[in-house]
Amino acid sequence: MSQQIDFYFDFSSPYGYLASERIEGIASRQGHLVIWHPILLGAVFRVTGQGPLTEIPVKGGYAIRDFQRSAREHDLIYSHPEVFPVGAVSACRATLWLRDHQDPSVQAKTGQFVHAVYRAYFAQGQDITQASVIAELADSLQLDSQALLTALANQVLKDALRREVDQAIDRGVFGSPMMFIGDEPFWGHDRLEQLERWISSGGW
Amino acid sequence: MSQQIDFYFDFSSPYGYLASERIEGIASRQGHLVIWHPILLGAVFRVTGQGPLTEIPVKGGYAIRDFQRSAREHDLIYSHPEVFPVGAVSACRATLWLRDHQDPSVQAKTGQFVHAVYRAYFAQGQDITQASVIAELADSLQLDSQALLTALANQVLKDALRREVDQAIDRGVFGSPMMFIGDEPFWGHDRLEQLERWISSGGW
Repeated sequence: MSQQIDFYFDFSSPYGYLASERIEGIASRQGHLVIWHPILLGAVFRVTGQGPLTEIPVKGGYAIRDFQRSAREHDLIYSHPEVFPVGAVSACRATLWLRDHQDPSVQAKTGQFVHAVYRAYFAQGQDITQASVIAELADSLQLDSQALLTALANQVLKDALRREVDQAIDRGVFGSPMMFIGDEPFWGHDRLEQLERWISSGGW
Repeated sequence: MSQQIDFYFDFSSPYGYLASERIEGIASRQGHLVIWHPILLGAVFRVTGQGPLTEIPVKGGYAIRDFQRSAREHDLIYSHPEVFPVGAVSACRATLWLRDHQDPSVQAKTGQFVHAVYRAYFAQGQDITQASVIAELADSLQLDSQALLTALANQVLKDALRREVDQAIDRGVFGSPMMFIGDEPFWGHDRLEQLERWISSGGW
């Protein structure tokens, strides 16, 4: 049985986006599965007392420069969004709808959907807070966007996201991206190499 | 003529310590020189509004775990100090005394001195805020500790540290370690690999 990489991410996290484009390659090389965990950093920040990186004096400017530099290094498109950050609640709920769907063929598209939303925001400048945009992205993956829109309006999915975020906080998630190999946490896009060394060496 | 890596660090920064143990290897492989820039994060935090990493809820616990894990990965000793963080003003001034000394043989020991102070704090549990401890470390490197103690009491060296910190802030330093290759900034122990790729590839 494959082991898993639990990948926690906020859809308006630049480093979450960059890492989302690379984590499956690592998982594949190491024989692991990626489990996608959408979270809302706004809720996390209420626990940690932190706020968006880009709003910190001096550090914020470095961060924006680094988003673009780190994207260039990995041949990824990065265009800093005009409206940033956003609370992409529908996108998170939609991710859970896919991931926990009873139909395995829908489940199997979770990663593609995460990529579609992230790219819409960070490469194509789309407003991913709109349910209509999320529905279009679902359509582009041959998903049943009507069923998705219905689910998005349902309390079950709202509760599921709340539970997902609460569980993340209980597990010690304080930023995005944050990854776990079993109980071992790794925070940040710049820890992907270390995470892969951890898996391949069995830890140290 | 060699290019240089400007290495900014606070003596009570765990990631500064870890990076200080690795930066000369990178510099050597890439034909660069390391220029040591001691700073005081307390002064930097007044500009950025930030505080010590370990004091942030949730994130702080991860950080302490990660200091030890990252040290293990690189076969470095790390013992989280009982008194943490500290303002190692004398150690910073002493570093400048060495680095900017008129005698090249004293200058040449700057790196060794930085290592001695960092190891005293993070491996041997010494109180590096004491000038007497700094003098002992200087003695261990066959430096003139009496001349150093005299210089530490002198306004010239106090002004030098103030200028060093001000210049760092003007350059955009907001944390420790922070490294510059020319105008290109890199923040964090976890960016050493990226920094080396940047040098070896000529940037991207």
